[in-house]
Amino acid sequence: MSGEKLPSRTEDFSEWYNQLVLRADLADYAPVRGCMIIKPYGWTLWENIQQALDRRFKATGHVNAGFPMFIPKSFLDREKEHVEGFSPELAVVTIGGGEELEEPLVVRPTSETIIGYAYSKWIKSYRDLPVLINLWNSVVRWELRTKLFLRTAEFWWQEGHTAHATYEEAEAETLQMLNVYEDFALNEAALPVVKGLKTESEKFAGALKSYTIEAMMGDTKALQSGTSHNLGQNFARAFNIQYLDRNNELQYCWTTSWGLSTRIIGAIIMTHGDDQGLILPPHLAPWQVVIVPIFRNDAEQGPVLAAVEQVKAELLGAGLRVKVDDRDTVSPGFKFNDWEMRGVPLRIEIGPKDVETGTVALARRDRPGKAGKSSVPQTGIASHVAEALMEIQAALFERALAFRKANTYEPKNYAEFKEVVEKGWARVWWAGSREDEARIKEETKATVRCLPLEQPDGEGICFYTGRPTRQQAIFARAY
Amino acid sequence: MSGEKLPSRTEDFSEWYNQLVLRADLADYAPVRGCMIIKPYGWTLWENIQQALDRRFKATGHVNAGFPMFIPKSFLDREKEHVEGFSPELAVVTIGGGEELEEPLVVRPTSETIIGYAYSKWIKSYRDLPVLINLWNSVVRWELRTKLFLRTAEFWWQEGHTAHATYEEAEAETLQMLNVYEDFALNEAALPVVKGLKTESEKFAGALKSYTIEAMMGDTKALQSGTSHNLGQNFARAFNIQYLDRNNELQYCWTTSWGLSTRIIGAIIMTHGDDQGLILPPHLAPWQVVIVPIFRNDAEQGPVLAAVEQVKAELLGAGLRVKVDDRDTVSPGFKFNDWEMRGVPLRIEIGPKDVETGTVALARRDRPGKAGKSSVPQTGIASHVAEALMEIQAALFERALAFRKANTYEPKNYAEFKEVVEKGWARVWWAGSREDEARIKEETKATVRCLPLEQPDGEGICFYTGRPTRQQAIFARAY
Repeated sequence: MSGEKLPSRTEDFSEWYNQLVLRADLADYAPVRGCMIIKPYGWTLWENIQQALDRRFKATGHVNAGFPMFIPKSFLDREKEHVEGFSPELAVVTIGGGEELEEPLVVRPTSETIIGYAYSKWIKSYRDLPVLINLWNSVVRWELRTKLFLRTAEFWWQEGHTAHATYEEAEAETLQMLNVYEDFALNEAALPVVKGLKTESEKFAGALKSYTIEAMMGDTKALQSGTSHNLGQNFARAFNIQYLDRNNELQYCWTTSWGLSTRIIGAIIMTHGDDQGLILPPHLAPWQVVIVPIFRNDAEQGPVLAAVEQVKAELLGAGLRVKVDDRDTVSPGFKFNDWEMRGVPLRIEIGPKDVETGTVALARRDRPGKAGKSSVPQTGIASHVAEALMEIQAALFERALAFRKANTYEPKNYAEFKEVVEKGWARVWWAGSREDEARIKEETKATVRCLPLEQPDGEGICFYTGRPTRQQAIFARAY
Repeated sequence: MSGEKLPSRTEDFSEWYNQLVLRADLADYAPVRGCMIIKPYGWTLWENIQQALDRRFKATGHVNAGFPMFIPKSFLDREKEHVEGFSPELAVVTIGGGEELEEPLVVRPTSETIIGYAYSKWIKSYRDLPVLINLWNSVVRWELRTKLFLRTAEFWWQEGHTAHATYEEAEAETLQMLNVYEDFALNEAALPVVKGLKTESEKFAGALKSYTIEAMMGDTKALQSGTSHNLGQNFARAFNIQYLDRNNELQYCWTTSWGLSTRIIGAIIMTHGDDQGLILPPHLAPWQVVIVPIFRNDAEQGPVLAAVEQVKAELLGAGLRVKVDDRDTVSPGFKFNDWEMRGVPLRIEIGPKDVETGTVALARRDRPGKAGKSSVPQTGIASHVAEALMEIQAALFERALAFRKANTYEPKNYAEFKEVVEKGWARVWWAGSREDEARIKEETKATVRCLPLEQPDGEGICFYTGRPTRQQAIFARAY
């Protein structure tokens, strides 16, 4: 990592992002076009995300399983909308063990079809329901316009797949998992999100209803950050997932699926980052605290390093994730820049004066310069640090929420709409058709991100059709 | 799961295994030939294995990362022995996004080559070394003769990949990770293993030296349970992984790789299982304890279930993994069989008499019948249970070790050798050539499993060539 500055976010947001991902050591380009390598720092972040989600999945009764990456091509064809949605994006294995395969194998773009195959074998009776399974894996959707974390041919994610006896149970599960995603986004990633329903033209290929959480990035574009689908009986009928009910009659199951991917890392970068680099929410940061020892000579070194070790031990004992940067080949100033680039939420500096006074200097990553610096006593250091981390976590969320509010508009007509979607989100009364959506997208690049679950009472006039309606939509340009 | 018995292990070990895997609900066949689905019970076992290993990897300074599943075909060709070893087993993607690819992509059979590409970009100087990275993923080696967990086209594993400045450091890493595998096998999986070196003909394609841990299964065949490779500079030269040393001179790195896969689940099944089904080592079991409430009428139900809840809460509080089987559709006897099939190490029965006397009945899975049953007070139940689990863990290991000793022979000549490899392992003085190995394999199906690291002092006479030698080998038929 060099000491050069990033392009500023206002100057070139896209290039700021691209360089930040590389220089924060999160990921790298793979030798295969469209693919990425997630480096250890980025992967540890993903592991922390996985743990925060997995805990929530298990607390809501889900279990993990391992499904194959290969799916017979014919499986995809069984659900009409599904195959139309995914066919253009498939990677296909045609040769195995040196021989042409009789039936080509698709590398899973998502697992609804092979799950359908398995559930039709496993589910016999209402006593087998619900089935609540989650998979942690990677999937492939052929993409050539790469943007690390945001759009790659292979990406890592979790995909939940559940089967239920009734529509109501499936719908409750779909909403429960949407709420799990919201809880994760708010309380772990410090991302304010809007929960809502996708329109017919934006929903998942094969779903009855798709719900989403949408977040506003630092350039005001929207990012779909997690989706939860009520699949109705579409896949149950295509794969014959049936159960005997209490009256001994055969019924089709109702299924759901829900997923959240490494894209969320892109959301964290683009929501919290600044011109100095990444800012990580303390709950997910691989290192929550970095300690930089400062000394000019051997006489100072001993007592400083002793204090560093003491502080480190206390923080580790309190369960915090701590890194001591003891490199002797670079200066403290270089280290400050380096860890700012990598987004460590809190820096502790310990120098000879701190040793004398029994204090340390804290520097908050979210508040550059003097405003973020304070001196605290070494006594009780773990609680000072824990408190600072809590404040940072809350401040990141509050700042992102204020930013979204400041950049969300309520245009009353199409002319106003065209102006505001250049600079933010449009929350509008909406009664348009699928064709209206397509026309607006073509003319403004803005799409319906969602029909928010929280709607105002009463009704208003659709900004586009002029028709009265009880429903609001959020339109925005999106990643 | 039906109440039918498994085939006995002596009668048909292979069919015993196949049926057990399905009936213990560990895994299922996938719709793609050669692939498997790991069901939630099997996957939870794998998660416990992963955690036990990952803890050890991190404690020895390793970090995880995410590498792509696709490798350009040309990468495989760069290391001569590597491509010869893996070419016949490759799955190849030739179509992406509806179009024929210019260069076919291989689904990784292992990641040395793409790691080589990345390390050559990332490593510049001696200050960047060592690089200590591990991947948790699945890999594909085309296999059509499926045996669940033991031989499937896709399998899950971890693969560690490290780069070092010197041969000595790479060799020390290779042995360190072999020791990590041994520690895991002994202390978590209760599998006695022999550490040793692979011969030239059995080593990894592209390695300088391959080390292995070998375990004896219940039919006395050997199973290679984890391998650690010193790759020398073979991949560093093929991929140009170089660093500037302290004298500012360019040097090739020394690299290692090491892996342990879902095969280990096969080893656990075939080492510990009995004619009633699976027996899981308590350290890895998804459920360490199952509680079965026993009552005949409503009057008994209340007090029994209250005691069950109390015991469950105390065990959960002590950090144990506990399941209460409260199904009202099957009898206690059915539940006993069911959980014996699934290998839960300890069963607790609580009936009306236990409520009266303030006791519970413990039944050890590893000791069938009355010998494994005892009555213990509900007071202090958590420590009684923890103690019983420790005893089971130790007993499983001791039994497996005794079995291996009883079935390891020291034949003095080839005639004796041929007899003993029909019924166990042969530990022999060995001075044969690669050709001798091939001939012995053809005539007896036995291969050199390893040259054990622990060798006796002194020398002996090679059973095959009659030459004096200081080296012993273990020969056996293997999975």
